Amino acid sequence: MTAPLIALLSDFGTRDWYVAAVKGVLLTRCPAARLIDITHEVPPQDIVAGAFILAAAAPWLPPRTITVAVVDPGVGTSRAILACRVGGRYFIGPDNGVLSLCLREGSPACVAISPRRLGLRTVSRTFHGRDIMAPAAALLAAGRRLESLGTPVARTARLPVPPVTRSAHAVTGRIAHIDAYGNLITTLSGVWLARRSGRLPRLRCRGRIARVVSSYAEGRAREVVAMIGSLGLIEVAVRDGSAARALRATRHDPVSVLWPSR
Amino acid sequence: MTAPLIALLSDFGTRDWYVAAVKGVLLTRCPAARLIDITHEVPPQDIVAGAFILAAAAPWLPPRTITVAVVDPGVGTSRAILACRVGGRYFIGPDNGVLSLCLREGSPACVAISPRRLGLRTVSRTFHGRDIMAPAAALLAAGRRLESLGTPVARTARLPVPPVTRSAHAVTGRIAHIDAYGNLITTLSGVWLARRSGRLPRLRCRGRIARVVSSYAEGRAREVVAMIGSLGLIEVAVRDGSAARALRATRHDPVSVLWPSR
Amino acid sequence: MTAPLIALLSDFGTRDWYVAAVKGVLLTRCPAARLIDITHEVPPQDIVAGAFILAAAAPWLPPRTITVAVVDPGVGTSRAILACRVGGRYFIGPDNGVLSLCLREGSPACVAISPRRLGLRTVSRTFHGRDIMAPAAALLAAGRRLESLGTPVARTARLPVPPVTRSAHAVTGRIAHIDAYGNLITTLSGVWLARRSGRLPRLRCRGRIARVVSSYAEGRAREVVAMIGSLGLIEVAVRDGSAARALRATRHDPVSVLWPSR
Repeated sequence: MTAPLIALLSDFGTRDWYVAAVKGVLLTRCPAARLIDITHEVPPQDIVAGAFILAAAAPWLPPRTITVAVVDPGVGTSRAILACRVGGRYFIGPDNGVLSLCLREGSPACVAISPRRLGLRTVSRTFHGRDIMAPAAALLAAGRRLESLGTPVARTARLPVPPVTRSAHAVTGRIAHIDAYGNLITTLSGVWLARRSGRLPRLRCRGRIARVVSSYAEGRAREVVAMIGSLGLIEVAVRDGSAARALRATRHDPVSVLWPSR
Repeated sequence: MTAPLIALLSDFGTRDWYVAAVKGVLLTRCPAARLIDITHEVPPQDIVAGAFILAAAAPWLPPRTITVAVVDPGVGTSRAILACRVGGRYFIGPDNGVLSLCLREGSPACVAISPRRLGLRTVSRTFHGRDIMAPAAALLAAGRRLESLGTPVARTARLPVPPVTRSAHAVTGRIAHIDAYGNLITTLSGVWLARRSGRLPRLRCRGRIARVVSSYAEGRAREVVAMIGSLGLIEVAVRDGSAARALRATRHDPVSVLWPSR
Repeated sequence: MTAPLIALLSDFGTRDWYVAAVKGVLLTRCPAARLIDITHEVPPQDIVAGAFILAAAAPWLPPRTITVAVVDPGVGTSRAILACRVGGRYFIGPDNGVLSLCLREGSPACVAISPRRLGLRTVSRTFHGRDIMAPAAALLAAGRRLESLGTPVARTARLPVPPVTRSAHAVTGRIAHIDAYGNLITTLSGVWLARRSGRLPRLRCRGRIARVVSSYAEGRAREVVAMIGSLGLIEVAVRDGSAARALRATRHDPVSVLWPSR
């Protein structure tokens, strides 16, 4: 049996002691645990970005990985802290939507963590990642059953999902995430880039038309291109540059796949 | 018995090979060691920030953790390199104050590391983190006694600690650290925020008055608030924003708790 | 026998899920592996910087370490992905020069990885770090022979190495790398800083003359100095500051060691 794996995502940044405090609590309470970082650079309190990055990373983590996601602007309020099991993996985080994209499929089981059941006496009002989520993760890692950590929760917070709209010659989604390269990752499935009657569609974003290619390197220097990215979603990129800068694009901007009307 | 844990703090940044060189030496000399990063983003050569972050993280690390702290503007000079044991944990770093906040309590035992006793032949003049501190940490991790690493040291460098001043209706400390969210962490203990005659005090910082709350989320949008932070110290924060930016605050600025004079 | 060690270098940044996806694949396929990061902040698609940082870190990594280097602007094109063994360590990365500085000595053995031989069915066109390099590294970590991963490669891509030129009273090289402190690391071996007839040479960079010292701390405040750095190469530094900023230096700028003509 391999050592339990705990993955961490937060908006703590990496300049302070916050990540180390969480890791210290985890390793104090479950010395056998192995730790990996997803990221700690979620923009401060940006639940939408945290949820996207978490959902992008999660499918690649080993079975039984326990992920702790701390993007928690409501710390100290009455919002619940969830522990969930879905698709053979575990997720712990505030009930504010940051886990929601991981809970959309696979009949998740969720409990609201009870600090008392965890045997926690002193809990700060400002750092539940350290004081509640890390102890809960350590217990799961040490083999405790999810159901013993709290009370079952039927409804959990969800993020609004912008709709994909369709017409005869176009399908329109949104920019879901802008990555560190400046690539624009959309809400549109890559299947929309398939040929129709032998012709590739084009993509429109911020008034610009992007050619459909199959890899970054197919673009000409500085060309805006569209392709199926590594998540299976349509991405807009600029060869050797930042599409976000070139198009002055921001999250939620609309993006359309256009087919020739013929 | 669990594998030894070595924690790292430095001002190396994470863009270069410096952290990897230190980790490579640690794992070459003690393959069983587990490693965690506290941070490598201490501002270059900022001993005060390094000492604060180290002291904030240390209590949360597991017993027997060996922490290597490399903020070392005097590398290559005659300053000693310390190895210390205090409160069941170990600390290695230059004798320039970076360890000093961890050595204030608990009767620390300190030695000045002797590269010769460690069997080190070639030591650079510019990278003692790799060439002396990492080998010393690996030896401790492999079970060697602290006292065998060098000669006992009675006095170690200390950082100046700004005094807390008190009057009938106020107590005044300083901003000790500004975290990545822009929260201002003060030198004032959270006990000063207790009610007197049923009334909460207020906080003054940079000419602004902050209301006392018990969690970030209690603030109104953009309000400057004061609370007991996760270290037990008074913190100044702005709801969904940066107190450092809002108040143009810098480290060492004075902060006062004010009680109504009645 | 100790657990296999896999080191990672990339230009992914640490804000997104890319590093976690690679680590997830590695730990799914080789749960016993230990992971360390060299850096993920190679400037986007900067093969020269990636190669330099990789070659600087590699000698310090334990024997048998498997390093995966993903700086891969040609992902999705026909460029090969190499797996190499040299000096008792393994390197995996695109055949674009990023590995080349590690392959200059020690009779490397290199193969071009065949995704089919690895049993990989679905491979993206945009993320070969996750889809090919990580699976290959996991196989090596699990004990598979290098030669079984693909077909032997005799010639691999090399980066142009700027020549060092010599005259009677000077030797001239280039700035090879600028580190996060702003230190300028040159292509010139530190042996050029030895005394001649009892006198130290001086260094010229960007029209400024730098005094030769033996450690950063020997410089006066803001003085530009030259010394033998931790890689054994000549470095230009500014005491308590950034030489890159002070001299407005960029990579490839010439740097000369000057001896008095007498």
